[in-house]
Amino acid sequence: MKKIIAYQGEKGAYSESAALHFFGTNVDLNPCRDFESVFKFVGKKDNQYGVIPIENSLTGSLHENIDFLLTHKVKIIGEVKLRVSHSLIALPGTKLSDIDAIYSHPQAIAQCGEYIKKLTGVKALSTYDTAGAVKMIKEKKLKTAGAIASIQAAKDYKMKILAKSIESNKANYTRFVVLGKKHNEKVSKPKTSIVFGAKNIQGALFKCLAVFAMRDIDLLKIESRPIHGKPWAYMFYLDFRGNYLGEIEKKALNHLKELTFFIKILGSYSESKEVSPRSR
Amino acid sequence: MKKIIAYQGEKGAYSESAALHFFGTNVDLNPCRDFESVFKFVGKKDNQYGVIPIENSLTGSLHENIDFLLTHKVKIIGEVKLRVSHSLIALPGTKLSDIDAIYSHPQAIAQCGEYIKKLTGVKALSTYDTAGAVKMIKEKKLKTAGAIASIQAAKDYKMKILAKSIESNKANYTRFVVLGKKHNEKVSKPKTSIVFGAKNIQGALFKCLAVFAMRDIDLLKIESRPIHGKPWAYMFYLDFRGNYLGEIEKKALNHLKELTFFIKILGSYSESKEVSPRSR
Repeated sequence: MKKIIAYQGEKGAYSESAALHFFGTNVDLNPCRDFESVFKFVGKKDNQYGVIPIENSLTGSLHENIDFLLTHKVKIIGEVKLRVSHSLIALPGTKLSDIDAIYSHPQAIAQCGEYIKKLTGVKALSTYDTAGAVKMIKEKKLKTAGAIASIQAAKDYKMKILAKSIESNKANYTRFVVLGKKHNEKVSKPKTSIVFGAKNIQGALFKCLAVFAMRDIDLLKIESRPIHGKPWAYMFYLDFRGNYLGEIEKKALNHLKELTFFIKILGSYSESKEVSPRSR
Repeated sequence: MKKIIAYQGEKGAYSESAALHFFGTNVDLNPCRDFESVFKFVGKKDNQYGVIPIENSLTGSLHENIDFLLTHKVKIIGEVKLRVSHSLIALPGTKLSDIDAIYSHPQAIAQCGEYIKKLTGVKALSTYDTAGAVKMIKEKKLKTAGAIASIQAAKDYKMKILAKSIESNKANYTRFVVLGKKHNEKVSKPKTSIVFGAKNIQGALFKCLAVFAMRDIDLLKIESRPIHGKPWAYMFYLDFRGNYLGEIEKKALNHLKELTFFIKILGSYSESKEVSPRSR
C-alpha cells in the first residue's frame, strides 16, 4: 500500500519538499488546509503520515504545532532540516516594475523584509500559505501582484520567477518533523523529543536537567510552553541525543518521572542533515 | 516633568490599562502604531517610558518583543500581570443577531474561539489591534460588525457592549513589562531578567542553571530563542528571583560569565500581583 503524506499548504509548499526528502517521490501527497487537519489524518490508517514545520532558524518555534504534538496521538518518526530560499513569483508577462502588491505567508514576508523595503510603494499582504499566494495570483489573474514562494511553486503553476533568493538572511532553515502512528523501530544517530511538567519543587528545572547531565546525555533543545489554566506554570519540550529505548536513556526517563507530574515521549528518530528543496 | 508612556495600540488597549496600573493616571500617554516605535521612544528623554506585552498565560511569549529587548538599549523597570477579559463590542443600535463579521487581533480571536464558533455563519477577521477594531467599526459605520476588545475601548469610543467575558478560558493573563532608560534603583520583592548565549561545551545549559541552583536562587522562567545567522544555536532568556546588585546574585552572574559568550542584564524589578483592568 502506497504511503500517503499529509502537509499544510498547496502544491509546491516547503512542507511538500520536506515530505519528498524523507519519503522519496513514490508516495501520494495530501495537501491540507490547516495544521490540525494534518494531525487528524496521521495514523487513521497504517499508511497515513504527516509532515509539519516545527521551528525556523530565524523566527523560532511554531507554537501551534508544538501544542498539537501534546494533544494528538502521534509520534515523531523523523525530521528534515530544509534550507528555505524564497523567490518573487508573478504571472508570465508581469515585470518587476508592474508589481504594486506582494502576497505571502506572514513569516515569508518577514523573512524578505529588506528586499520588499527596497521596492518603494509596494504593499505586503498576508495569505495563509506561500504556494497558495502563487495559486491565487494565477486564478484571479492579478497582473500587478507578486507572491513569495518556492521555485517549485512557480513551476507547478507555470508562473514566472522575477527574483530568486530574496530572503534577508541566507542562514534560513526550517525544521520539519515527520509524524506517524507508531514509534520508529530502527533509528540511526538517534535523538528523542519529550514533553514534561515539572513538580512544584525548589530548583525543579535544574533537577530535571541533572537527570540527563549526570548520565552524559546531551541536551539539544529546551522550550517552555504555558500550561493552559495554570498561569505562570510551564511545560518543557526537550530534545536529547539518544533513543528512548536505550538502557541509559530509560534510566534517565525513570529518574525524570520522580520529578515530574507528567511525561510524554514524542518519539526517537534520526537526526537530519541540512538539505536543499527537492522537486517532484 | 510629566512622564510620557508609550504603548502599542489605540486608546483603550490592554497595554494602556497596564501602563495606568504601573504609573497611575497622572501621566501622558503615547499610543504607537507598532512595538518597535515603543522601543525607540523609551529613554530618548528622561521622562519617556514604554509598556509592552511579553507573554500570555494561554498563548505564550510574544517573540517579537523578546527579540527587541536584546536589540534595543532599554531596561526592564517593572512588570504588570493583567487579567484579560474580552467583550463583544458594536455600534449602538446593532443587535447580536445582526453580526456577520467579528474583527480583532488574531490572539484575541483565538482566545474567544468557543464563543465565536457558537455564532454560526460569522466570519472572524484580523486587525492589528483590539481597540483599533472598535475604532474602525465606528469610523466606517459597520452596522453588521463586532469587535473583540476591552470594556474600556467600548467606553472610549462610546460603543455598545453586546457580550462580556467571552474568552474561552478565564485563566487568561498577559504579562507586560515596563521599559525605561536606566536600571531601577529601588526594588522590593525583586526578580531579574537576563539573556545569555551559552558556550558550546558539554552540558552547557545544565551548567548555566547550576550557577543559580548551587546558590539557592530560584529560577522563575526559561525561554530559548534562535540566534540569527547560527542555525540550531540558541540564546536563553532567564528570570530569577533576586536583584542583580545583590551579593549572591553578583557572584552567580560572574560565575555565569565563565560559561557564556555574552550576557545582557535586562533589569531587576518588583514582581507583580495579578490585577484587573484599570480605567482612566
